[in-house]
Amino acid sequence: MELALIGLGKMGSNMALRLMRGGHRVVGFDRSPASVDSAAQTGVIGAHTLEEAIGKLTQTPKVVWIMVPSGAPTTETIEKIASLLQKGDVVIDGGNSNYKDTIKHAETLSAQGIDFVDCGTSGGVWGLKEGYSLMIGGKQEVVEALAPIFETLAPAKDKGWGYVGPHGSGHYVKMIHNGIEYGMMQAYAEGFGILKGKKEFDLDLAQISHIWQYGSVVRSWLLDLAANALDEDADLKEIKPWVADSGEGRWTVFESIDLDVPAPIITLALQMRFASRDEENYPARMLAALRNQFGGHAIKKED
Amino acid sequence: MELALIGLGKMGSNMALRLMRGGHRVVGFDRSPASVDSAAQTGVIGAHTLEEAIGKLTQTPKVVWIMVPSGAPTTETIEKIASLLQKGDVVIDGGNSNYKDTIKHAETLSAQGIDFVDCGTSGGVWGLKEGYSLMIGGKQEVVEALAPIFETLAPAKDKGWGYVGPHGSGHYVKMIHNGIEYGMMQAYAEGFGILKGKKEFDLDLAQISHIWQYGSVVRSWLLDLAANALDEDADLKEIKPWVADSGEGRWTVFESIDLDVPAPIITLALQMRFASRDEENYPARMLAALRNQFGGHAIKKED
Repeated sequence: MELALIGLGKMGSNMALRLMRGGHRVVGFDRSPASVDSAAQTGVIGAHTLEEAIGKLTQTPKVVWIMVPSGAPTTETIEKIASLLQKGDVVIDGGNSNYKDTIKHAETLSAQGIDFVDCGTSGGVWGLKEGYSLMIGGKQEVVEALAPIFETLAPAKDKGWGYVGPHGSGHYVKMIHNGIEYGMMQAYAEGFGILKGKKEFDLDLAQISHIWQYGSVVRSWLLDLAANALDEDADLKEIKPWVADSGEGRWTVFESIDLDVPAPIITLALQMRFASRDEENYPARMLAALRNQFGGHAIKKED
Repeated sequence: MELALIGLGKMGSNMALRLMRGGHRVVGFDRSPASVDSAAQTGVIGAHTLEEAIGKLTQTPKVVWIMVPSGAPTTETIEKIASLLQKGDVVIDGGNSNYKDTIKHAETLSAQGIDFVDCGTSGGVWGLKEGYSLMIGGKQEVVEALAPIFETLAPAKDKGWGYVGPHGSGHYVKMIHNGIEYGMMQAYAEGFGILKGKKEFDLDLAQISHIWQYGSVVRSWLLDLAANALDEDADLKEIKPWVADSGEGRWTVFESIDLDVPAPIITLALQMRFASRDEENYPARMLAALRNQFGGHAIKKED
């Protein structure tokens, strides 16, 4: 098939490559001219404006895959694209949009007769080689018409992708996927933390991660990544203990609250990321102050 | 090599099979005569007493692998076995013993000149086919002499097993492995719980688990097992929401406390299992009573 890929960052540029290797014609646009030129060298048909990107599509209906940061960048891109498309064309949002935004985007485009598909895309930088896991929402017949694209991006034609439900459900499932990821990551982090703390055994954490990769109950792709990191430096000395979050963890927690469905450890995994970034740690100061107030317990003074 | 396998339950009987397929001579004992007879039909040299099991070993040093429940059964078995062995013989505890017990077992046996090896064994009922992940503590030269056994039990000769440190460290690493497992399981459970709670999307949880199996960040062996369970019945209607714990989760939490190393989500995953078993739920009654006391909020009456 043929599509315009809007956003040629780490994810977008790899996806363009995988699509081209699968025989698709890919027009690529990015705000950064350097990213466009770099993609053009791999065979992408480069476009330096959205207009140019849409103009270089030769087939009807036109298919535009948006792969830009969620929030305002995605909403603005969708609005600009809408003005360049015709009735019957299709916009796919492959990013990590909040599913509530996604439902609005679908309504906006639908009012103009443009079809919209939300595609939760997992796989990170390994997706180029191993394929992406794709959770797809929208109208089923629209998704089915795009099957050749999903079959190429997925790990195999019939594996790792699927139509999951109406507009927003693809991004919803991806959001929960990421919430689970928060919990899993925190579980590994705590386990390796205790292993590291057990000084008298002088354990080799990289070796242990490799033992667990084969035959253990905790084997997983995330464990493979942990093993890579531990091989590089088991003490992780060069890595600041400061953990970002990019939206979907907190949205999962909001959803738990909106639905009254308990999600205590996903919530706590998110909170531990906040704690990692709280360099002032006012709550710990407060705890120490309170122990001092009621029991005269010693306070450590700031250096 | 040749070894006596003490304990022919689900794990022990499968391990005997894998060892025999690998060319080892396996003498098998179990308290249950039926388990011995059943193992004998698969080629195990059956023994109906510990004495008979040790007596049927023909090589020196004798090697005895113990695979019985942790705690008193393991300690009693080790004590009985010790009285039947000679200096230089080797006892391997492949079960889920608390590493503090393991250190005591090693001391007891060492006083008699018997070598001891602790082997944390992961893999569950799939181990027969896929091999076991083995985390091994003890004296390095003793472990090396047993390598043919570990090479056969592991997924591959050079994969999924390793000498990790002194007596107790094998069981220690296995304990932390299980603590991580508690956190991972709870993360999946909460994520699927939210997906199930989102009624308006009418999501197919089994389908989603299959999409995630290929290319996603949360792919893992535990996810494969979740997919199996969801394929059988995505509503899990026949499964009571009552979750046991078998020791290693709580020992991981004790260890976190002993070492002053934070492990909040592993701790909470354990607590959620307690909550699942608290059918009286006195704390929730107390919360409802307090809301009623201070705010006059309605209480739901027991039927």
